[in-house]
Amino acid sequence: MLRFGILMLLFSGLCWAQEPNDFRPAETNVWGSSYPRVDSTGRVQIRVKAPDALKVKVNFWSGPKMDMKKQEDGFWMVTTPPLAPGLHYYTLMIDGAEASDLNSHAFFGGTKHASAVEVPEPGSTYYLIQDVPHGQTREVWYNSEVTGTWRHALVYTPPKYDTKPDTRYPVLYLQHGGGEDETGWIRQGRANFILDNLIATGECKPMIIVMAYGYARRAGQPDEDTTDVPFGSPRMMNAMQDMTDAFEDDVTQALIPYIDSTFRTLPDRDHRAMAGLSMGGMQTFQITLNHLDLFSYIGGFSGAAASLAFGNEELNPKTFSNGIFSDPAAFAKRVHLLWLGVGTEEPENMRDGIRRLHKSLLEANIEHVYYESPGTDHEWQTWRRDLKDFAPRLFRSK
Amino acid sequence: MLRFGILMLLFSGLCWAQEPNDFRPAETNVWGSSYPRVDSTGRVQIRVKAPDALKVKVNFWSGPKMDMKKQEDGFWMVTTPPLAPGLHYYTLMIDGAEASDLNSHAFFGGTKHASAVEVPEPGSTYYLIQDVPHGQTREVWYNSEVTGTWRHALVYTPPKYDTKPDTRYPVLYLQHGGGEDETGWIRQGRANFILDNLIATGECKPMIIVMAYGYARRAGQPDEDTTDVPFGSPRMMNAMQDMTDAFEDDVTQALIPYIDSTFRTLPDRDHRAMAGLSMGGMQTFQITLNHLDLFSYIGGFSGAAASLAFGNEELNPKTFSNGIFSDPAAFAKRVHLLWLGVGTEEPENMRDGIRRLHKSLLEANIEHVYYESPGTDHEWQTWRRDLKDFAPRLFRSK
Repeated sequence: MLRFGILMLLFSGLCWAQEPNDFRPAETNVWGSSYPRVDSTGRVQIRVKAPDALKVKVNFWSGPKMDMKKQEDGFWMVTTPPLAPGLHYYTLMIDGAEASDLNSHAFFGGTKHASAVEVPEPGSTYYLIQDVPHGQTREVWYNSEVTGTWRHALVYTPPKYDTKPDTRYPVLYLQHGGGEDETGWIRQGRANFILDNLIATGECKPMIIVMAYGYARRAGQPDEDTTDVPFGSPRMMNAMQDMTDAFEDDVTQALIPYIDSTFRTLPDRDHRAMAGLSMGGMQTFQITLNHLDLFSYIGGFSGAAASLAFGNEELNPKTFSNGIFSDPAAFAKRVHLLWLGVGTEEPENMRDGIRRLHKSLLEANIEHVYYESPGTDHEWQTWRRDLKDFAPRLFRSK
Repeated sequence: MLRFGILMLLFSGLCWAQEPNDFRPAETNVWGSSYPRVDSTGRVQIRVKAPDALKVKVNFWSGPKMDMKKQEDGFWMVTTPPLAPGLHYYTLMIDGAEASDLNSHAFFGGTKHASAVEVPEPGSTYYLIQDVPHGQTREVWYNSEVTGTWRHALVYTPPKYDTKPDTRYPVLYLQHGGGEDETGWIRQGRANFILDNLIATGECKPMIIVMAYGYARRAGQPDEDTTDVPFGSPRMMNAMQDMTDAFEDDVTQALIPYIDSTFRTLPDRDHRAMAGLSMGGMQTFQITLNHLDLFSYIGGFSGAAASLAFGNEELNPKTFSNGIFSDPAAFAKRVHLLWLGVGTEEPENMRDGIRRLHKSLLEANIEHVYYESPGTDHEWQTWRRDLKDFAPRLFRSK
């Protein structure tokens, strides 16, 4: 029996698409829900009750879009092909209505509380909760004169922050992507566990991480209904640029002063980093390059300067951002880390923008780190890996 | 024009059902969504896209259940009668499938990420964010040997907690209701703002609030699919009792030691309170009355001892909970506060259980506070008011 089991295991490794039924409830489910289920090959089964619906589809945003099949009990089912490891956003289409799956926890993405399923990555424990000292994630509210509103941010404080009252810490400002919010890096990204684990092994310096709400509207600016504005459209890109400009002022004029007066930070450029994913990478490039008096570590996770990474512009080192890339030696002295990453399976336009920027930086002799996440799309597994590579490189200078 | 406006305003006060169109996006919406909308009479308009659906309904859990009407643009609309002030959970039924409204933020209730709409209460600012010093809400993880798992809790630390490192604080353990989770008192209840505001005016002593995940399964106990177990059924009630027993051990053996070793608490019974709503009130009564060595303040918000508040049992002071209510003077000396509350519009069985318990306590000469929230149902507006009355009474003895 045991030998037969081992044989099956070997066989299944060679031919995983034929894996027998070892589906288990996903760890992203709400309590008591046995669906969605994931098997050891990464296949996902989804089951929803929709007795009177004519058509139900599942839509993985970076994955399969499939028709579900109605069972005799009024439930609709689908089994996907194997998905890559990581967290996959999805929604359902029930007779043309987009809906989340109430069996799943909700994750804010695409400007909605969407569903997601976590496909485990065999052997990867770096983003799992482990028996190591844990930091805390704190919800804070700060008053911004830029936006004229109270704004919500999450702040990770490292283990022992409360018990070492004389220690001050460097700060990483870490931004979510377009359509997501300040909760993304904790709920989807598990940045707290990634840092807990890296700090426990000594790979990473203890640091504070600030996760802000990356949308901003200047005080007095009228509200705008963006429900039906297509993602990536010129109108959306313009709106994003306006938001980024307002967010830049919010970060530099309201958030940083608030953080430095509320937490035990090392409040200088040598101990302040910023990184972000996708839209957050675009914001990071704009904010840090405009404020090198404030930041000395820069990370772009599947996102960088808008015109270079998302547009079709070629980097001109002499002119870009007031010639910041025109003197490689001066740049290397001023910027302790410039970090770029992208997943190998990301959509071509996203991947190519980052790859082209990397090539241009190489040609311009600008020192930087470039990382490609193998087999992952424009999704959270890419960004978890990015953070795991990026964070240990922080605050090593001086 | 102005005089006409004033006239309309006067008129509308007399005849609010005829109020002209002053609908505004609800504050519970995700950014960019103009629906749901609320008008000044408390009417709510909901609009969802479901072009191919045959039937769409809206289901307010403690409010109207209404058919929506399809418009020519493929959107379905409904306007409710005026709703009471406060936060109202709802979901949609799209051709028989329960779904949340993706225009709304998600609030965990009914074991799902449901939608909710906030109807403002004119003149009530006690649960709104104001320009006063703010506490922080911290996410913590503690390891429980009772459940054999890492458990997530939220901890509110009062304003100035970080800047007064020599001050120790009393602790209120505050529990959510059945189907909700540890996020409810912050997201739905706004306990942080209620406390910030009460502390700012000096009405309430600065305190720590611990909000735990109120479900527990003992280490090794098998998982159970409770998706289709009807709420309130005997099987659900038995499951809840098992959970409460495990939760009792988790609170007393894992959570309290963790909190007292992690935060600057006053770790004795005179500085420890517990309260909860609905199921959380039932848990509070069981846990506190079994552990009067640990607790001296007790609050039941629309919930109390299961057999008395939810069952049909009459309180027998001589026998209930080892005769704890048999000696009023001894009880008053031991328990600094026993607090009970219920909303006047709650379902009869819930309201009557609490009222009967109140009457029995009066007859038994047991000192306690009883509060009825006027015009509110088994919903968060009742429990916000409860907390506003309850918290200022805490930690006044000694």
